[in-house]
Amino acid sequence: MSEARDQPTRKADTLRMLATQAIDVWVATASDAGVPYLVPVSLAWVGERAVIAVERSSVTARNLIAAGAARLGVGPTRDVVMVDAVLEKTVDVAADDALGAAYAAQADWDPRGSTGYVFFVLRPVRVQAWREANEMAGRTLMRDGRWLV
Amino acid sequence: MSEARDQPTRKADTLRMLATQAIDVWVATASDAGVPYLVPVSLAWVGERAVIAVERSSVTARNLIAAGAARLGVGPTRDVVMVDAVLEKTVDVAADDALGAAYAAQADWDPRGSTGYVFFVLRPVRVQAWREANEMAGRTLMRDGRWLV
Repeated sequence: MSEARDQPTRKADTLRMLATQAIDVWVATASDAGVPYLVPVSLAWVGERAVIAVERSSVTARNLIAAGAARLGVGPTRDVVMVDAVLEKTVDVAADDALGAAYAAQADWDPRGSTGYVFFVLRPVRVQAWREANEMAGRTLMRDGRWLV
Repeated sequence: MSEARDQPTRKADTLRMLATQAIDVWVATASDAGVPYLVPVSLAWVGERAVIAVERSSVTARNLIAAGAARLGVGPTRDVVMVDAVLEKTVDVAADDALGAAYAAQADWDPRGSTGYVFFVLRPVRVQAWREANEMAGRTLMRDGRWLV
């Protein structure tokens, strides 16, 4: 196990990871009835928001619209960034040129030509980062929407 | 994008992945109030059950006990096995020698000496596996607890 990183290092690593080209995010949501859902999708990090593009009819989209909340996992399981996020807005993929361009520039696909896809713009409220057990302490980097470091 | 695998190949790959040494699983659960939770933990695949060890006081444990259901993601995001599972039983880590030995043989840690940890034995009801978009068709390998291949 390597030495635990300090919090400024973890924040820098976190921001770098969230902005990685063609990176995916695990998106956990829940239905009204409390049924958990989970799926990996492409991530874009735009203006301190996590942006995903999913079909409007998908389970993830329906859960997000109903509950307005998701928990995101990015990175391999032993170098994770966990983000609790709330739904800020949904945007039709063809409706916002700047958002569409930013998404397509980071992700390795461009949903703007895909019928039925919607951008979900998710605002982080809590961000945590850890690699192994020795980094559980100090893992919270953002709380209540504010960076602690 | 490589050629889509047939279902027998996906099942064989899936069983091999679930039995991989020191592999982690993303565990998505939800609270009674429908708040999603997600965390990566070590996985053991024992007798066609997914077994995890978590602290009894953790969010994941509380959600599993209350709701009895989880959705699991294993593997990198572009070679995933997704498992919808129900809670079959919880077992104190020191209470079942065979289970404890099987868990410790696959995972890279042994929770049997850790106070407060509990095994959650999760029974798969749906299993899906895909790598990229061309494998979305044919991704369901188990439905209603029965392998389709």
